[in-house]
Amino acid sequence: MTDRPIDPTTQARLGAVSTATLATVLFKRGLRNQFVQGARRLGAGKRPNMVGRAFTLRYIPAREDLDVLEGYRDPEHPQRKAIESVPPGQILVIDCRGDPRAASAGGILMTRLHVRGCAGVVTDGGLRDVEEIGGLAMPAYCAGPSAPTTLTRHHAVDMQLPIGCGEVAVFPGDVLVGDGDGVIVVPQEIADEVAAEAAEQESLETFVLEQVAGGSALPGTYPPNDDTRARYAAWRAKRED
Amino acid sequence: MTDRPIDPTTQARLGAVSTATLATVLFKRGLRNQFVQGARRLGAGKRPNMVGRAFTLRYIPAREDLDVLEGYRDPEHPQRKAIESVPPGQILVIDCRGDPRAASAGGILMTRLHVRGCAGVVTDGGLRDVEEIGGLAMPAYCAGPSAPTTLTRHHAVDMQLPIGCGEVAVFPGDVLVGDGDGVIVVPQEIADEVAAEAAEQESLETFVLEQVAGGSALPGTYPPNDDTRARYAAWRAKRED
Amino acid sequence: MTDRPIDPTTQARLGAVSTATLATVLFKRGLRNQFVQGARRLGAGKRPNMVGRAFTLRYIPAREDLDVLEGYRDPEHPQRKAIESVPPGQILVIDCRGDPRAASAGGILMTRLHVRGCAGVVTDGGLRDVEEIGGLAMPAYCAGPSAPTTLTRHHAVDMQLPIGCGEVAVFPGDVLVGDGDGVIVVPQEIADEVAAEAAEQESLETFVLEQVAGGSALPGTYPPNDDTRARYAAWRAKRED
Amino acid sequence: MTDRPIDPTTQARLGAVSTATLATVLFKRGLRNQFVQGARRLGAGKRPNMVGRAFTLRYIPAREDLDVLEGYRDPEHPQRKAIESVPPGQILVIDCRGDPRAASAGGILMTRLHVRGCAGVVTDGGLRDVEEIGGLAMPAYCAGPSAPTTLTRHHAVDMQLPIGCGEVAVFPGDVLVGDGDGVIVVPQEIADEVAAEAAEQESLETFVLEQVAGGSALPGTYPPNDDTRARYAAWRAKRED
Amino acid sequence: MTDRPIDPTTQARLGAVSTATLATVLFKRGLRNQFVQGARRLGAGKRPNMVGRAFTLRYIPAREDLDVLEGYRDPEHPQRKAIESVPPGQILVIDCRGDPRAASAGGILMTRLHVRGCAGVVTDGGLRDVEEIGGLAMPAYCAGPSAPTTLTRHHAVDMQLPIGCGEVAVFPGDVLVGDGDGVIVVPQEIADEVAAEAAEQESLETFVLEQVAGGSALPGTYPPNDDTRARYAAWRAKRED
Amino acid sequence: MTDRPIDPTTQARLGAVSTATLATVLFKRGLRNQFVQGARRLGAGKRPNMVGRAFTLRYIPAREDLDVLEGYRDPEHPQRKAIESVPPGQILVIDCRGDPRAASAGGILMTRLHVRGCAGVVTDGGLRDVEEIGGLAMPAYCAGPSAPTTLTRHHAVDMQLPIGCGEVAVFPGDVLVGDGDGVIVVPQEIADEVAAEAAEQESLETFVLEQVAGGSALPGTYPPNDDTRARYAAWRAKRED
Repeated sequence: MTDRPIDPTTQARLGAVSTATLATVLFKRGLRNQFVQGARRLGAGKRPNMVGRAFTLRYIPAREDLDVLEGYRDPEHPQRKAIESVPPGQILVIDCRGDPRAASAGGILMTRLHVRGCAGVVTDGGLRDVEEIGGLAMPAYCAGPSAPTTLTRHHAVDMQLPIGCGEVAVFPGDVLVGDGDGVIVVPQEIADEVAAEAAEQESLETFVLEQVAGGSALPGTYPPNDDTRARYAAWRAKRED
Repeated sequence: MTDRPIDPTTQARLGAVSTATLATVLFKRGLRNQFVQGARRLGAGKRPNMVGRAFTLRYIPAREDLDVLEGYRDPEHPQRKAIESVPPGQILVIDCRGDPRAASAGGILMTRLHVRGCAGVVTDGGLRDVEEIGGLAMPAYCAGPSAPTTLTRHHAVDMQLPIGCGEVAVFPGDVLVGDGDGVIVVPQEIADEVAAEAAEQESLETFVLEQVAGGSALPGTYPPNDDTRARYAAWRAKRED
Repeated sequence: MTDRPIDPTTQARLGAVSTATLATVLFKRGLRNQFVQGARRLGAGKRPNMVGRAFTLRYIPAREDLDVLEGYRDPEHPQRKAIESVPPGQILVIDCRGDPRAASAGGILMTRLHVRGCAGVVTDGGLRDVEEIGGLAMPAYCAGPSAPTTLTRHHAVDMQLPIGCGEVAVFPGDVLVGDGDGVIVVPQEIADEVAAEAAEQESLETFVLEQVAGGSALPGTYPPNDDTRARYAAWRAKRED
Repeated sequence: MTDRPIDPTTQARLGAVSTATLATVLFKRGLRNQFVQGARRLGAGKRPNMVGRAFTLRYIPAREDLDVLEGYRDPEHPQRKAIESVPPGQILVIDCRGDPRAASAGGILMTRLHVRGCAGVVTDGGLRDVEEIGGLAMPAYCAGPSAPTTLTRHHAVDMQLPIGCGEVAVFPGDVLVGDGDGVIVVPQEIADEVAAEAAEQESLETFVLEQVAGGSALPGTYPPNDDTRARYAAWRAKRED
Repeated sequence: MTDRPIDPTTQARLGAVSTATLATVLFKRGLRNQFVQGARRLGAGKRPNMVGRAFTLRYIPAREDLDVLEGYRDPEHPQRKAIESVPPGQILVIDCRGDPRAASAGGILMTRLHVRGCAGVVTDGGLRDVEEIGGLAMPAYCAGPSAPTTLTRHHAVDMQLPIGCGEVAVFPGDVLVGDGDGVIVVPQEIADEVAAEAAEQESLETFVLEQVAGGSALPGTYPPNDDTRARYAAWRAKRED
Repeated sequence: MTDRPIDPTTQARLGAVSTATLATVLFKRGLRNQFVQGARRLGAGKRPNMVGRAFTLRYIPAREDLDVLEGYRDPEHPQRKAIESVPPGQILVIDCRGDPRAASAGGILMTRLHVRGCAGVVTDGGLRDVEEIGGLAMPAYCAGPSAPTTLTRHHAVDMQLPIGCGEVAVFPGDVLVGDGDGVIVVPQEIADEVAAEAAEQESLETFVLEQVAGGSALPGTYPPNDDTRARYAAWRAKRED
């Protein structure tokens, strides 16, 4: 598990590429299952990318005798402790086994995370108070709005262990990126190289999109042949001036 | 089945609390399954809460020989009769067995309900003409847009019987509340006491949210310890001046 | 398979009726399953109807040794070839077997279709770069945003064969109409008569909606009895002056 | 609702035809949705067909304060009352909204039904004590074994109303037939004519199957052309001697 | 976590009661969600109950670079280590997040568990070699047969932590009981009292079933009134002679 | 597409290995998705493996005006034509888009295939007359019993094109193997080498299973270390004598 900050160049690159481009770069490395299925961003409008390391929280199914409101009085309650433990700049990722029928958390806890400098929240369960959460600057991704308290379906057990979220393996320290399409998980060991390749790819795709918007046909343009690559090199050199 | 108007204080309180708070208050009473799963509000933007008693309409699967357009000419057709029967201020709740593949109703019927003073519509099936319906002042919650006519999948059988909607039991006269998270069903027998407790809880949570937004950590604040409770009492006294 | 342009009157009529009305007209002809289940339009705000003939593209499940990025270099790759083949004014319809876990296509391909004069895109799979696609004038309907590359789950095999999309049969040349509720498939053989009847029905429903908004009860109004029909005839005669 | 016994000829015919043949006969009448989806027969081995009128029992989702074991002490409890009310020769059909996560009933209740002369049980929910029930002579169809008590998920509300079961409309008095494929619902109004036509069809199919088993190709045999029909007439005449 | 052997009386009682009875006894204590949904026993024929403490193994979604066959060479691989660690008489319970599309394990590993004296295996994923496993004396419950290797979808991470299995919370040391209906999880803290009460209840139900099989109506018999209880007491006294 | 007979050695090997072993051998080649999800074999008891090339048949969703019983009179109807076209020794594979709610085919068609020497049938839809089909020597795999006629949900369009079945790509000529776990698809290009490697692996696993049944622990045995491999070589040499 890596706890050190993301390399600033990597952080900047990941803030400027799409999850689609990252998915393709990961696919080239044989990683086909890194996109968190079913998690949508709350709130309307275009927003900057969410980028940060994963801080994990794990829920199992609730048991009625254990999951009672009084449990929250204990500061060691794993949900509450996790929220107070996420380091600034990291992303709280919650394993709800894909069950959207209860909230993973609500407006007060999301506000606390925001105040603490958390870079975002990702859950494959629901969230409550979604209008309030959608108004926070901190991005939040979930399977949908859901008013029932977490205890209705979930028992928080531990934090900072490997989990599944949206059918993807998430290890503490993995680098998550979120945009309008959703959230992708970049294994921490390859985050720097993936970011570098994705930035290259994104630059090329910007050029390609310009060509296509201007009327170029796909063959030779996307993927680019030698001629297109040469024109891209010129375009890029000019932009970097 | 209760048909008398909701107590005005209860009505006012339920208009001012969130479904999340209501879910927690019901959870404390052992009621864990009162949130209508999968029903989302049509139309964008923040809106006042939907509050009203449930008026129920029940659909079973369609049978091709019975479910033909000519049936609507009969004023006793259960769907049409229900729409003409919902008392003002009540909410039409439709049991579609969670099937989103056809409309429960469309723009004309929703407009009729609106004109008749209906407080809202909740269905675990689809609705057609969703852009039109989303523009009405009357709130409507459904499983998604769906153009096919009701007859395609549903046979309206009766009204004002207990039904299921979104996996929740709904008895005629139960009190429904809807906000941006969705719809919750408050059993009519406990609506007044639940509203009172929820109003208390909502007030406390407003205070807690202010504290958290201002930097308070969760332990001692949420749930509140004695000190926080004392500060809340002072805050509240001041507000009530 | 019909490749000739849609009759201009039919085209105009289909641009002015709702998919709900079309669903009812098709239902009267015994066609109960023409609505593409689960496909939602990307982008916010009211938009003109999508109308055009179906140009089909078929995907089967991916096989890892066949579905590699290098395949896109071949101009005969069925996905790329289909995009370069859709005639202007037609709609690309993609059979993804209802699997939303990967993109059917992304921003560059959608832009190419837009530049080529394609009237829209419909898929029962995902799309990537949804914010970008939602900003195009060309409408796009899909099962949801999904960043993973098409190759992750799909192998493009052929085009212009009959397919399934959203649990509906789509034959090349069928006429598709899309609005805020979703997309409906009108068999090409009956497109003209369906459009004519739907235009009639839509006109009647506009009148009925006015009556209902003005306070008319459903019985006698919807469906209309002889008196309402007579008043409708007068209303219509006046509008057509 | 018809409560009179099934016509003895119809009863005999339905005991001798398959649900597959009945499905085809109903399909010819435009009834495409009469097969109870997902209900399998408990117990191994070949058995005679289940045939009988439907006696319906309706469940809605449970509510924790209402659905307690003490409720069973009331002889008017709808589940217990239904079991004591099914007339001999009829079939108890239970609407569980397709939820297999709790039992509709268990061994004791099934035994009581068997002793009372009930012709079978059909539910789209679970059953508990399935090994015991599978050993009864009375056939039982369900969505699967499930140990949790009915009260866990279901609230019994009423009996002898139209219901849905396995996505099919079931009206009290409809005629149900069950075999190794499952259960089909024959609307009571057409039970006699459907039985007659199905008996004809089954006889023809027995002949066709002999031909096919003996090496005949499908064209001309299935469906039969004039020549095959003539040979069938001879075959049948001989058998009826 | 309790690792000591189950009390012999409790073990004997749990071997003689049904999961249905246990579900009811747990329901009376407010525990409504202890039945492992969707896990069926492999192999045909009636068998003794499976009884034992849970030894847990947790899988998260696979990652292609980590989940390779070579990993099994490491004796510390969590799947292999778990299989070598389950104490005799305990039950291996595997959390596969309800995904039946790959095997949790296969014939060789099941045979090893059997040889080691394991009391059974429960998984909410698939198993491979099901005919072979169904022939072992050791019971195995799974979501269905599935040939793909575990690595295809699962990454084994750790053992003896609380997990979810079939939507139920399972803590190491909990007592599991399996019969023909499936598997139920009895929290370890209450296993003795639950077993005692279940044995009482089972004895009563045996008597009730005899009465019902002999023609008694449900009212007064099930649940039993005072008279039935008195006759039960006599019946039981006689049997215990 | 390969139409030549499977190599006899390959055929023999595939008849003697499990689908589990084949899945592992394919996994080693990077093919993770070759198992037909959800298709179970009809009929009880142990049977020889099903082995043969795929002959494909494709269904799309039904359209009521096209899918009528009269269509079967046409010998060119794709379903009937496919059944008369499968070469002896090949397997009919039907793409039903995973929809189990209607039959892919029934007893008469299955009998015709059996008489024609077809090696088996695989569908991700239903089958009707399952007791009859389960009694044939020809193996049949489906998603479950379903009485409704094919036309209810399916429109047969073409044969011998690549299809999806149970979420797997199937190309005409691919080699399918079925056992008690289900069906696996071996790409035709690698069938010989996969069979050879699987035979080796199966032999090794037979030895390993003997060791494990005899008490060997997993480490060093499975996977085998050098010592175990040496003992295996001796064991095998002796068996091959």
